[in-house]
Amino acid sequence: MRRWNGWGDEATVVELPAGGADFLAARIGSGRPLPDASLESVLARVPASRLEAHPLITTRAEDRVRHARGQSLPDWLAMREGDFGVFPDGVAYPESAEDIRKLLAWAERQDLVLIPYGGGTSVAGHINPEASTRPVVSLSLERMNRLLELDEESQIARFGPGANGPQVESQLRARGFTLGHFPQSWELSTLGGWVASRSSGQQSLRYGRIEHLFAGGILETFAGPLEIPTFPASAAGPDLRELVLGSEGRFGVISEVRVRVSRLAEREAFYGVFLPDWPRALQAVRSLAQERVPLSMLRLSNALETETQLALAGHPGRIALLEKYLGWRGAGAGKCLLTFGVTGSRVQTANALKQARQLLKAFGGVFTGTLLGAKWAEGRFRFPYLRESLWQAGYAVDTLETATDWSNVDALLRKVERSLSYALAAEGERVHVFTHLSHVYGEGSSLYTTYVFRPAASYAATHERWRRLKQAASRTIVENRGTISHQHGVGRDHAPYLLREKGPLGMAALQALAAHFDPQRRLNPGALLQDGDA
Amino acid sequence: MRRWNGWGDEATVVELPAGGADFLAARIGSGRPLPDASLESVLARVPASRLEAHPLITTRAEDRVRHARGQSLPDWLAMREGDFGVFPDGVAYPESAEDIRKLLAWAERQDLVLIPYGGGTSVAGHINPEASTRPVVSLSLERMNRLLELDEESQIARFGPGANGPQVESQLRARGFTLGHFPQSWELSTLGGWVASRSSGQQSLRYGRIEHLFAGGILETFAGPLEIPTFPASAAGPDLRELVLGSEGRFGVISEVRVRVSRLAEREAFYGVFLPDWPRALQAVRSLAQERVPLSMLRLSNALETETQLALAGHPGRIALLEKYLGWRGAGAGKCLLTFGVTGSRVQTANALKQARQLLKAFGGVFTGTLLGAKWAEGRFRFPYLRESLWQAGYAVDTLETATDWSNVDALLRKVERSLSYALAAEGERVHVFTHLSHVYGEGSSLYTTYVFRPAASYAATHERWRRLKQAASRTIVENRGTISHQHGVGRDHAPYLLREKGPLGMAALQALAAHFDPQRRLNPGALLQDGDA
Repeated sequence: MRRWNGWGDEATVVELPAGGADFLAARIGSGRPLPDASLESVLARVPASRLEAHPLITTRAEDRVRHARGQSLPDWLAMREGDFGVFPDGVAYPESAEDIRKLLAWAERQDLVLIPYGGGTSVAGHINPEASTRPVVSLSLERMNRLLELDEESQIARFGPGANGPQVESQLRARGFTLGHFPQSWELSTLGGWVASRSSGQQSLRYGRIEHLFAGGILETFAGPLEIPTFPASAAGPDLRELVLGSEGRFGVISEVRVRVSRLAEREAFYGVFLPDWPRALQAVRSLAQERVPLSMLRLSNALETETQLALAGHPGRIALLEKYLGWRGAGAGKCLLTFGVTGSRVQTANALKQARQLLKAFGGVFTGTLLGAKWAEGRFRFPYLRESLWQAGYAVDTLETATDWSNVDALLRKVERSLSYALAAEGERVHVFTHLSHVYGEGSSLYTTYVFRPAASYAATHERWRRLKQAASRTIVENRGTISHQHGVGRDHAPYLLREKGPLGMAALQALAAHFDPQRRLNPGALLQDGDA
Repeated sequence: MRRWNGWGDEATVVELPAGGADFLAARIGSGRPLPDASLESVLARVPASRLEAHPLITTRAEDRVRHARGQSLPDWLAMREGDFGVFPDGVAYPESAEDIRKLLAWAERQDLVLIPYGGGTSVAGHINPEASTRPVVSLSLERMNRLLELDEESQIARFGPGANGPQVESQLRARGFTLGHFPQSWELSTLGGWVASRSSGQQSLRYGRIEHLFAGGILETFAGPLEIPTFPASAAGPDLRELVLGSEGRFGVISEVRVRVSRLAEREAFYGVFLPDWPRALQAVRSLAQERVPLSMLRLSNALETETQLALAGHPGRIALLEKYLGWRGAGAGKCLLTFGVTGSRVQTANALKQARQLLKAFGGVFTGTLLGAKWAEGRFRFPYLRESLWQAGYAVDTLETATDWSNVDALLRKVERSLSYALAAEGERVHVFTHLSHVYGEGSSLYTTYVFRPAASYAATHERWRRLKQAASRTIVENRGTISHQHGVGRDHAPYLLREKGPLGMAALQALAAHFDPQRRLNPGALLQDGDA
């Protein structure tokens, strides 16, 4: 059963390893747990629904609780406190495009607001209902999760928009294919959600971002369905896929997605390499990207993330041995862990590995084989579960991410980390901050920063801590040539910063499109574009 | 000096080889040249300009003649006949973004129409002025052709929009870089034009289409400049680069382009391989793309294009010898020539070549080394010059292109070729039609079809032949899951077919954007979007 107030399946627990709490306590002080609310107490607080009955919509309280919040840290705090704020008045479960069209028509007749809902994994407030005089319906696409068609020759799969990661991959795998899109939220997040929020997966180096994988589909709008045909490429004017990609439910409801798939690769492996210091590590990964070494995955942890990972890995004896070996090979204090993957035919993976090893050696890299890579692969979707254990231990953890050009990567990383490290200084609170690069490109890289801090004495004060941290980092990002999001989207949490990135003219163009498709602002109002924008 | 009534530099002549005319005569009858008009006679027909004097605008007749037409076949016919139709009232030569903004303001004050003009190489009627009660100014960006900044670390170059292919590459080469964008029009076409019309270069397999290379820039609009910052990737809502890519001058004037560049490769080579027949050839190139063999260029001629190329290559003795050898190796009648390139480090190119040869061998490919590849590389920008010699010999030649998914490539190719072959049957005229695939993708391929036909007794009747051919093929394309253009854009010639591809809702969205940026329809009206669309 899925957790109602946190990440993932209740049966899955990722323990904080012995020593992990000590490591954090030494860094930012001992943990301070806050009490969790019970589901019963939350259900008791759900107000009466304002909806008239409709066969596709349920107004059951638990459904409304389970669709009220995503997985951002403020969502987390609200769920743990039991103070959810606004609940949707009901949840719709369409099973077809026809159902979606009926719901759009119903929304017009009944003056409703609709929030398209995929896996509910947003970490930027995409699917949270806002207080409204109009009743709000969360439109869950979870029943539209099937592989509808597979063109094996063109390697195009047609899916329902609500298929989550495992549903996408298992249906494709049965036919010998993969989408290759593996965001950390993969267990729960959905194809439609990936498209609507411009997601990127851990193996984007090989398979591309969702922008590349999304070949076409159907967007149900108040003006009728917008069908986007599939072409391998086209020069016929602006690409209408951009009306769907990153639209975050503002222009329409995605009822069908066609994606570019690949045959399952013959071979795949992940490796760990330690670089002696950050400057050399940075140069090494930039070279890997710019020299087009055909890797499928790459993640470079900075020194503090490397240290944190090793401290939280458990097995202190084995780690000490590893560190001794690394020190002897020239990767001591300040070392940075690079994890990379190769995927493809036997020949391709062997060639890629050889090229990568050769290049990394020139930067002082110490190759450690597949052990750490396998460890990464095994834990690749488990990090969100760790949030639960950290929370129980009295620590709040959040992540944020951006991307910038290579000439700015190091400077932006330092500024973002600094802004977070000192954001709670006025209260005398320390923050544990570390970063990795992933999704590297010839032009630059994404930066993914994790910050751990202690809850305050109350939920309200903890939320205020988060607000100060998030605001400090977000401002730093947009004022220093970073995008407000490389892979999480805009939602409500990043919307205030979008103007800085898109400019007034760009925002006005997006508003013009929103007004064109949804003049009554019935679709997810407040996400992506704020009222005051333009 | 650039030809005023055809392609390229007057000093460059690509002779039709001995036997070439015979080959065509046997196919479609002997050539029928039409008389060419003189420049003097055309200059005499240029009407008085309706413009008031402006320091950035010239109203000289020859400037107006040289900016009135592109390089489509109807443009060609108009220029050769000397019946140009509408001339711009003047040509502006801005030297800065500031100049462009002045011209936009002037256009508003004086109620002018502006046509942004790059290299004038459009083959779809992008830059042809339409008859209008408002005076028309062609806004040539040729003086804004400089490399303004190179961020070597991020591999981002900032250019003036008017830099043509040789200007782009020579300025980058001096610093050790390349853009890697080589459309056939490369000698004359410009960076801004590539962006505005979604161009694709011959080595897009390695460097990507212009959509990938275009990282950001500035669009000068009537509502002010839209500055698009560079990010390696972003999830922050719809990508505003799409307001520039494929905008064909409708939303604004590009005043600055930032592109992703690459270090000059250590090694590059092109090879020729003959596949025994079309079905196997098709499967082979699909496998190369879908198995991600890292080639930099690929072109597969169908049997008739292969035959035509060999016939027009000259050297009949050597060709006969080659054909004998190929026949002995299993590639006789019906054989298809595949040209491919590898680019990169020594190790990468060796690996890629090995993978490609191995794969092609499995499909019966006969490898012939670098001779035909070198021949292709040497002639890669010369095909447009051949049009001049064919015209002198009494043949009209035109090309058109589309792209479609692999499962439809063969069927669409046959339908397009058939529609062209029989389009003039009512007059008893034959048409010589052949096709190659290039720009292959995992999902599908572009199809590039060449058709040769004889001019009729008059220019008007010849234009009518072209119209019938173009219409037959264009309808076939959009009715059979092809895009109306993979690399030439929409302009005026393809605009009538765009609705079929984008749908009424998509067209309405584009119209809403055009109305947003240019409510008075001053910018290139009639290109991309027709009056009646939406």
